[in-house]
This record gives sequence, C-alpha cells and structure tokens, in this order.
Amino acid sequence: MTDTELDLDDVDAAVRRLAGVAHVTPDVTSRTLDDRVGGRVRLKAECFQRTGSFKFRGAYNAVASLPPAARAAGVVTFSSGNHGQALALAAALHDVPAVIVMPHDAPAAKRAAASGYGAEIVGYDRYTESREAIGDAIAAERGLTLIPPFDAWAVMAGQGTLARELFATEAVDTLVVCVGGGGLISGCATVAKALGDVRVIGVEPAAGNDVEQSLAAGERVVLPETPVTIADGQQTMSCGDKTFAVMRERVDEIALVSDEEIVAAMRFAFERLNIVLEPSGASALAAVLSGRLELAGQRVGVTLSGGNVDLARFSALTAIEPPVG
Amino acid sequence: MTDTELDLDDVDAAVRRLAGVAHVTPDVTSRTLDDRVGGRVRLKAECFQRTGSFKFRGAYNAVASLPPAARAAGVVTFSSGNHGQALALAAALHDVPAVIVMPHDAPAAKRAAASGYGAEIVGYDRYTESREAIGDAIAAERGLTLIPPFDAWAVMAGQGTLARELFATEAVDTLVVCVGGGGLISGCATVAKALGDVRVIGVEPAAGNDVEQSLAAGERVVLPETPVTIADGQQTMSCGDKTFAVMRERVDEIALVSDEEIVAAMRFAFERLNIVLEPSGASALAAVLSGRLELAGQRVGVTLSGGNVDLARFSALTAIEPPVG
Repeated sequence: MTDTELDLDDVDAAVRRLAGVAHVTPDVTSRTLDDRVGGRVRLKAECFQRTGSFKFRGAYNAVASLPPAARAAGVVTFSSGNHGQALALAAALHDVPAVIVMPHDAPAAKRAAASGYGAEIVGYDRYTESREAIGDAIAAERGLTLIPPFDAWAVMAGQGTLARELFATEAVDTLVVCVGGGGLISGCATVAKALGDVRVIGVEPAAGNDVEQSLAAGERVVLPETPVTIADGQQTMSCGDKTFAVMRERVDEIALVSDEEIVAAMRFAFERLNIVLEPSGASALAAVLSGRLELAGQRVGVTLSGGNVDLARFSALTAIEPPVG
Repeated sequence: MTDTELDLDDVDAAVRRLAGVAHVTPDVTSRTLDDRVGGRVRLKAECFQRTGSFKFRGAYNAVASLPPAARAAGVVTFSSGNHGQALALAAALHDVPAVIVMPHDAPAAKRAAASGYGAEIVGYDRYTESREAIGDAIAAERGLTLIPPFDAWAVMAGQGTLARELFATEAVDTLVVCVGGGGLISGCATVAKALGDVRVIGVEPAAGNDVEQSLAAGERVVLPETPVTIADGQQTMSCGDKTFAVMRERVDEIALVSDEEIVAAMRFAFERLNIVLEPSGASALAAVLSGRLELAGQRVGVTLSGGNVDLARFSALTAIEPPVG
C-alpha cells in the first residue's frame, strides 16, 4: 500500500503557485436549495475556473512543481477530457511543450480546445492501443514528464486549493465532492480534515461505484469495464494507488447518484442558478438534491466541478423527462 | 421636458441600502472574448443577482426609499417579467404587501415566481384592459405606492449600483448596456459620467429601436406597436420621460442587434462561459461580439442583465442555426 504524502502544507504551497493564475471561483448560494436541504449550502462553481473545470488547479500546480530542467523539457498526458485542456493551458502559461494523447475519435471540440492552447495532439486507436503505454513511450522518447489526471501528489495538492478557498470564506460542516479518479476529493479532504472535524462525502455515479467498493473492501477495486453513465468525467474503472491511500484515511462516506438525478441537477443549475454544468460537474449537487444525505441544520460545501458540455449534448440530455418529485 | 434628478449621490445612497441585501455579482472575463475584441472585457453577470436579473437592485432601492408609512402600506406594479419578481422579493424582504398586475395568459412560471415571494397576483386581459390603469386603480383603492419598472428616480439609482461595483474593481473606457425602458442605462451612465470620461453605448434590439429614434429626434418617440423580437425584456414601445432626460444627457450612442446575434451571444455565453442568459440579458454581449463597436485596446464593461429563461425556451431559441462567421 502507498503511504499518504499529502498534507495541508502541500495544498498551501499550491495556493501560492496558483495565486493570480487560477481564478478564485465564486461560491454560489440559492435560497431554494437551502430550503430543500434545510441547511446553508455553498456551491463552489469551478465551471468558471480557467478551462471550465477544477482540473486547471492540479495541472498547473503539477507543472509549476517540476524541477526547472524537467519543466523546460515539457509534459505529456493522456486525456480527452478536462485534464487534457487544463494541462495544455498550464504548459502554455509556462511556455513549455505539451503533448496530449487522445483517441482518434475524440470530439473535434476537445481536440480544438487542447490544440488551441498550443498543445500537440497525438491520436491513438482506443480499441487496439493503450493510452498509458503511448503516454509512457512519448515521455521516454522525448524526455517529457507524464502528468497523470489524478494519481500524483502535486495534482491532488492543486485540487485541494478549491477547499482552501471554500473554507476561507465560511466554515463547513459537510463537504460533498464528486469522485472520478479521486484527485479532487483527495486534495479537498486533506484540507477538510486538517482544518477541523468536517464530514467528507464523495459522490460517484451509481453505475461506476469503484471507490465505494474499494473503501468497503479496504483495497483498490477495479471495475471489469468502463461504467455506462452520462458522467463522462467519472467513467473511471478504478481510482489510483495514491488517491486510494488518501481517500481511505480522509473520506467518510460515498453517495451514489443515478444518471436521472444528474440530469435533474443539471436542470436545477440551469433554471435556478443560471449555471451550465456538465454531467460530472452536477453529480455532487445531484446527491445534495436527492435528499438521501443528512444535511439539515448544517453548513454544506458542494463542488460544481466543471461545465464543459456543448449545447447540443446538453439539450439532448436535459430533454429527458426528469424523475417525478 | 423632465429635469434630470439623478446623480452619483443617489446611486451611492442606493449602494448603502443594498449592502448585504443584493449580491455583489461577479465580473466574468474570457480570453476568447478579449481576443475577438482586441481589448479587455469584463462582463457584469447580473444573471447571478437575486431573482436572476439586475431588476432587484432598483426595486429594492425603491421600496427602501419610501417614507415608512407608505412603505408599510405596500407596493404595486405591472410587470409579467423580471421587475415583477424583483418587486415581489423586495417587498417580502421589507415585510410589506406587494401586488403584481400580470396578464391572465402570463406563463405559469412567472406567476409562480412572484407568488412564491408572497406577492398577490392580479390578472388582466391584455387585449381589452390597460395594465397602467389597473395598476393606478389598485394603488388608489388600496393606498399602495406604484413602483414602475424603470421610469422612477429610485429605480434608476438602484440600477446604477451595478456600475458602481464594476468601476470599483477596475477602470472602464467604454460601458455597453442593454436598453429596454432605460432604467439600467440611466443609472449606469450617471455613474460613468460622474466618474470619468467613459463612453456609454446603449444596445437595443433592431426591431425595437425607440431609444435610438428618440435620441436622434431629440424627443421621446413611441413605436406604433410592440416590437417583434425574442428579447422580451426589451419589447418596450418607448422609454420614460425621466429615463429619456437622463439618456439624452449621458448616453453617447445606441447600437442595434438582431435576434440572430442575440442567439449567437446566448450560445457563446453557454458554451464559452457556462452562463445561462435570457435573450435581453445577452443583447449587450451580442453588440460586443458583432464587431461593429470600436473597442480595440479598450477596457470594456458589459452588462449581462438577466438569466430568466426556462430550458425549453432556451433550447428552442438556440437550436436556430447561428449566423455564419
């Protein structure tokens, strides 16, 4: 098992690196939501972060933390999603090369977003090739540093800056955080447990509950196949060794949400908050709206982790009738 | 002609009344937008204001400015839109009665929003009855004060607090503000001209350019019929006597935008900013995106005035193909 090498000092070092670079995103509140929950809810709106998701925090901190020579050589990752865009921008801001490994059939918009920041896109066949192997090979051949999407201390520390901002404004009794690979919740739970007796709830899509299973089993569980869920940022088959080590120590419980509940949360954010959330970005809010978490009388912090969804997909998803009640 | 009775002191008095009650809404920036404009653009996101639009500022200031006895008796207005909701909340926060006069066929969601704040809804037939006459009659019968949507000094002063916040963060060379009845731009232009040599551009839907015509004619022009535009917050047939007096003194020019340009701006806000805007709320952004304003090298402030649009209408509007280029 991996030792936990992540503490509040690491997050605070990330806070200093990100100062003036990352946005301090707003806390959004809603009396309608407070009334439903019976508590005081603050939504940390990372959909307004640079590149549209919290991923910029971790990617930038990881690049900024590299020794100068390694940083100058450049970075590589495998991600067709938010981490890829985030790393592309983080590298551009450091004026160093970035390679993003993406499947040949990744949406054109995602390729354009990463290449728009000056990154080189390397394609692969998702049915016959391993993105990890390609990433490792490119790193070795070109002398680049691989920055993984979540299982790296500097990435987790960067994501933890979100909780630092949330806690700086007002105290929190319960923190509700979406979980994919576990990078965001690892950083945020580290802050929560360092600052006080804060309950930390992770939220996974019901179809992909590998972290719930892992925490129950006391060891990292790998799902047999990619979970089928609209929450594409949470379609991980397993968390990482490092994120598992942090989560087993610092996460109190896992809540599961259905795709229908995620859509209902996307609709709520759209109509009540005037905020656009991608499915994964709405999952923590979905858990809060589900009524299954005991939050009455509490001060609750919730991550709205990202908003990268195009209008056509958003309209198609939200056209589904929401569940009654 | 009406004398202008609105100055920076009035706005600053409104700032004090609104402190801790209205949200200080975020300035949103976008590098994509800055690159298109060739300047530095800050978008004042009033879609995150209480009740989802800037209207809360003016309505609250108007209620708070009433003499105690008049305030205690209550208020009335005619508006099926954002001002109605805003006044309903402003009255509720003062614990005084509010009556909102709305057509019988107003959308159920709008009735529910106003009655949700505890206001009494009085219906009328929009084809045979005058909402102004009904509002005046109710005010007289019940001893209520009529708070009009824009043509009142306290309403304009409240709307001006938006510009006070925008200018407090950073200087502005050009301010771009949507114009319906002229309440928002009157308040904001008053701040802009008091604080410096700021160019003030009003934005109207091309189909309803009564203010452009009025400023050109040097007198208030009334359109022959309700303009046909998706920007329902700007379907005014004329501005007010008071707003005209302020605008002719403090507004430099009017820009016009088409419905297609408004839709393109709604799409831009959705996809690039993760923000939901109603059509009127996107009109100032549409003018900025049109490329017809000369903004290169400037610090530009832009109002995103509201986000009250339901998902079905938003999806239907944005499904229209945007203009090429």
